Amino acid sequence: MTNRYYMPTKVFMGDECILENSEVFKALGKKALIVTGAQSAKRNGSEKDVKNALDSVGIQYQVFDKVMSNPTISCVYEGASAARENGADFIIAIGGGSPLDAAKAIALLAAQTIEEGNLFSGNYQDKVLPMAFVPTTAGTGSEVTQYSILTNDKAQTKTSIASDLIFPTIAFLDARYTEYLGVATTINTAIDALSHVVEGMLSVKASLISDALAAAGIQRIMACVPILLQAVRSGRERVFDLQHRQELLQASFMAGIVIAQTGTTAVHAMGYSLTYFQGIDHGRANGLLLGEYLKLVEKVRPDLAAKILNAMNFSQAEQFLELMNKLLGPKEDISRNDLEQYSKMAVQTKNIANCVVKPSEDDIRTMFIQAFRQ
Amino acid sequence: MTNRYYMPTKVFMGDECILENSEVFKALGKKALIVTGAQSAKRNGSEKDVKNALDSVGIQYQVFDKVMSNPTISCVYEGASAARENGADFIIAIGGGSPLDAAKAIALLAAQTIEEGNLFSGNYQDKVLPMAFVPTTAGTGSEVTQYSILTNDKAQTKTSIASDLIFPTIAFLDARYTEYLGVATTINTAIDALSHVVEGMLSVKASLISDALAAAGIQRIMACVPILLQAVRSGRERVFDLQHRQELLQASFMAGIVIAQTGTTAVHAMGYSLTYFQGIDHGRANGLLLGEYLKLVEKVRPDLAAKILNAMNFSQAEQFLELMNKLLGPKEDISRNDLEQYSKMAVQTKNIANCVVKPSEDDIRTMFIQAFRQ
Repeated sequence: MTNRYYMPTKVFMGDECILENSEVFKALGKKALIVTGAQSAKRNGSEKDVKNALDSVGIQYQVFDKVMSNPTISCVYEGASAARENGADFIIAIGGGSPLDAAKAIALLAAQTIEEGNLFSGNYQDKVLPMAFVPTTAGTGSEVTQYSILTNDKAQTKTSIASDLIFPTIAFLDARYTEYLGVATTINTAIDALSHVVEGMLSVKASLISDALAAAGIQRIMACVPILLQAVRSGRERVFDLQHRQELLQASFMAGIVIAQTGTTAVHAMGYSLTYFQGIDHGRANGLLLGEYLKLVEKVRPDLAAKILNAMNFSQAEQFLELMNKLLGPKEDISRNDLEQYSKMAVQTKNIANCVVKPSEDDIRTMFIQAFRQ
Repeated sequence: MTNRYYMPTKVFMGDECILENSEVFKALGKKALIVTGAQSAKRNGSEKDVKNALDSVGIQYQVFDKVMSNPTISCVYEGASAARENGADFIIAIGGGSPLDAAKAIALLAAQTIEEGNLFSGNYQDKVLPMAFVPTTAGTGSEVTQYSILTNDKAQTKTSIASDLIFPTIAFLDARYTEYLGVATTINTAIDALSHVVEGMLSVKASLISDALAAAGIQRIMACVPILLQAVRSGRERVFDLQHRQELLQASFMAGIVIAQTGTTAVHAMGYSLTYFQGIDHGRANGLLLGEYLKLVEKVRPDLAAKILNAMNFSQAEQFLELMNKLLGPKEDISRNDLEQYSKMAVQTKNIANCVVKPSEDDIRTMFIQAFRQ
């Protein structure tokens, strides 16, 4: 079987990397649409830095700041209209996973007409607006993936556009923008990144290089666990210093490269229902399920579980589960009926086919029930 | 300071990956020039696989098989003429570092006119022929770098073209083509890859992600050390099975990604003289010097040396030096005068400026002398 490695995004890393590299915007065009959410990009300084960089090289811009959490299909069509109306040559995305994922769909839809019925088909013309991405959380990895994950009301879940076309052209990783994140967001996004690297090692598409990056990502996040636990105990985000923020952003970046190769597995498949139906944050949803899935893997493929647990300095999946419980706190109350329904949906997803250890519907139901046992 | 990560080559990996993915050639053009050496691509089956793949998708091709070891500037101009005369839309490179590096310069020179005086300037138009690369040794990493290293008689050394333009478009990693390599080539190329990952960790441009890939590459090559030593003792290349070959090819690939980010250091700067003036194989030249440089680093920056030695499961640079001595066997006899001359040349190179631990001319002379002490 052929394995593939591909991640063409050019990544600039470090404090002030946007201002230090403002020249690179010039290769993307003369007019930008900045895609972001309503608030955070203004609060954390990223939008200002982007605007200053654009001003310094004489690039015009408009701001589309209407991306909500778990962006909808109508939101990305609206953004694409804004890009067309403003004659944008390229897209700049600022934010967490929601604005970044929305911006990829907007860049695609602004460059070509795609009916909503074909949006997730993967069959597109070879046209997309260039994109520059500025992540302001450390979890999504979207800045280095070819995925745009949207809320799909018809399918009652989150569905991915997956295409090499939508790899961002450029990404800027400046951890200073993540210093404003609260404790819950910091933890949920760190767990999202952890979920990406762990699931990457559990994918049928895992390769030596994706495993190497995944193991490094695991070690990096685990090195931040003491400070994450301290944040939970104290409830104070200022326990994190800039170096912690940098470590988490680098881990999230590596984790993004991993899932760009491997895709995600049962954990994401199951988590999407928790987000769609229960409004549970995406990273938290993964965290609630990851330990249960690792326990299943430990039973069926102990060698594979050991590879992951070794990178964590754990010997048993149970230890990881306990850690997640500490980080996640009290669990939501979800009815058995709902969990039954989510199990039926999850088992049909393509993420399940992507698992080395493919859970049955029974396995999925058991994992859901265990995960929400009070 | 801004760090950068960039490696846009699309890499296919695995047995028969060329034939399984022959469709991808169609995006590169209708007519190919195959750039290779005189013999090895014919012997190891790679040229036949490439030709079959091209035939299966109706792409025409010509073969330019005149690339010698340590290719010259005139060789790449000749190759570029062949590409133009044949109306080649794209270049396919097959071989070790020499054909691969030559092919990058050929792809550049076929697409635009560059006078010899400007060949190493880095100032080029934004035009290059697309490239598909097939490494048949496990050492160069050239399939995933932006470097083309040529023998430069005017400068009496090897000089690099370094430009993002010449990252190959596609690379195919099929370890079966490396099964025909003899013991010396296998060892020298493995040491070249090891040199890349170690030097990557010693570069001022090292980043968390390049270090993660470098550590993984070190571990992978060190895991092959027992079989490398067995090959030295027995003189038989058949001690290597396909899995060893795959491990070495993957390590070389990761090492390529590392130096694409970091560049190389004093070891390469010094090694180029040994190759230019003494005809010592490139990987061997690096191996002769790497232990000495690591000893210098151990003195000046023990923390940095420890990071590398840890990945090797060593505690002292001396242990690494002993290993290299075992792998490299008896050393060449080089006069003190010659080594003096090489020291003067090496200290002026930009590779020295790229070192965290920058050796003085005295340091370089001492390393050279120690390296060739009988």
